[in-house]
Amino acid sequence: MNQLNKSSASGRRTPDHPIDPVFVDRWSPRAFDAAPMPAAHLLTLLEAARWAPSAYNIQPWRFLYVLRDDTHWRRVLAVLDAFNRDWAQQASALIVLLSDSLMPGVDGRAEQPSRTHSLDAGAAWAHLALQATRLGYQAHAMAGVDFDKARRSLGVPGRYRVEIAIAVGRQAYAAVLPQPLREREIPSTRRPLGEIAFPGRFPG
Amino acid sequence: MNQLNKSSASGRRTPDHPIDPVFVDRWSPRAFDAAPMPAAHLLTLLEAARWAPSAYNIQPWRFLYVLRDDTHWRRVLAVLDAFNRDWAQQASALIVLLSDSLMPGVDGRAEQPSRTHSLDAGAAWAHLALQATRLGYQAHAMAGVDFDKARRSLGVPGRYRVEIAIAVGRQAYAAVLPQPLREREIPSTRRPLGEIAFPGRFPG
Repeated sequence: MNQLNKSSASGRRTPDHPIDPVFVDRWSPRAFDAAPMPAAHLLTLLEAARWAPSAYNIQPWRFLYVLRDDTHWRRVLAVLDAFNRDWAQQASALIVLLSDSLMPGVDGRAEQPSRTHSLDAGAAWAHLALQATRLGYQAHAMAGVDFDKARRSLGVPGRYRVEIAIAVGRQAYAAVLPQPLREREIPSTRRPLGEIAFPGRFPG
Repeated sequence: MNQLNKSSASGRRTPDHPIDPVFVDRWSPRAFDAAPMPAAHLLTLLEAARWAPSAYNIQPWRFLYVLRDDTHWRRVLAVLDAFNRDWAQQASALIVLLSDSLMPGVDGRAEQPSRTHSLDAGAAWAHLALQATRLGYQAHAMAGVDFDKARRSLGVPGRYRVEIAIAVGRQAYAAVLPQPLREREIPSTRRPLGEIAFPGRFPG
């Protein structure tokens, strides 16, 4: 297998039912080529996310974005944990995904907690990732974030939850990675459908 | 405009940046044709969801699904609130999306709360919805669910959060809807990108 793993190169990612190839082509590499990304491409990713579905069309997602040439690059990179910073510094763009934990009250009443803000933000994240794949990039979400630091240094108001950070770039050969990460640069598999989907009711 | 609104028929859904048309073609109609859905199609939707990204590839999503011909149809339909039941009874499939709120502990330690289970489930939901659109269906997520009833009647263990219910079907003319819903059968717009995406840090 070529060192630049494409998901299609891996028999481990053959779908069990016929689906759009983009769902298997999308994966989360860590090896990126550190090339500049045109701002227009980043806007296309955000535009795809903008059209995600959300409860009552509230659109609770917010994106803080930075291109690697921007002056704010180091500040955003610094909110990642050390493990992620190590490879994500080779990305072309970084995005911090927030969600608004409050939603408008009914009939003009006070704002109330949203039950679905994280789920809705997840749909927007998927849109972004799939559009990235279509455009020849890959997007890699990170839960390894210093969330308190992100809130402080990026000025995130209390009502917004810091969900994840996202690294976007063009995939590079695994050789660009620090040694311990090279052998992990393989598209992941999935549980069988029978373990996650059940007819009618929860089994057992 | 034709009564069977396609998103492309609506100038209100013209993207501001070039994106895959599927993101705008996907929307959440309420008018469905009540036709049976082949089980193979439902499996294709679930398969697309299966390949969603998740933190540490934990895949916290679970799907309880039912086709309208199944004996369990009425039980799943009954967990929707009255408003949603009114139109979703015309769907071809119903799916209740759960997420596992616990994740494996590090180094074999006890399970611990997951920070991203709802976000991850949202990514799986988006995959499902986009694949539905590709296959000529539409999927409509519902937050209007009797969550306690869903847990009881569908046997959902405490560790799983009931996230949303999803109606899937082939779009029908708005005339099949109860009168008050007909005029609402229009693909929704979105906030401008400038209201949801910010360079570098949160504005203000």
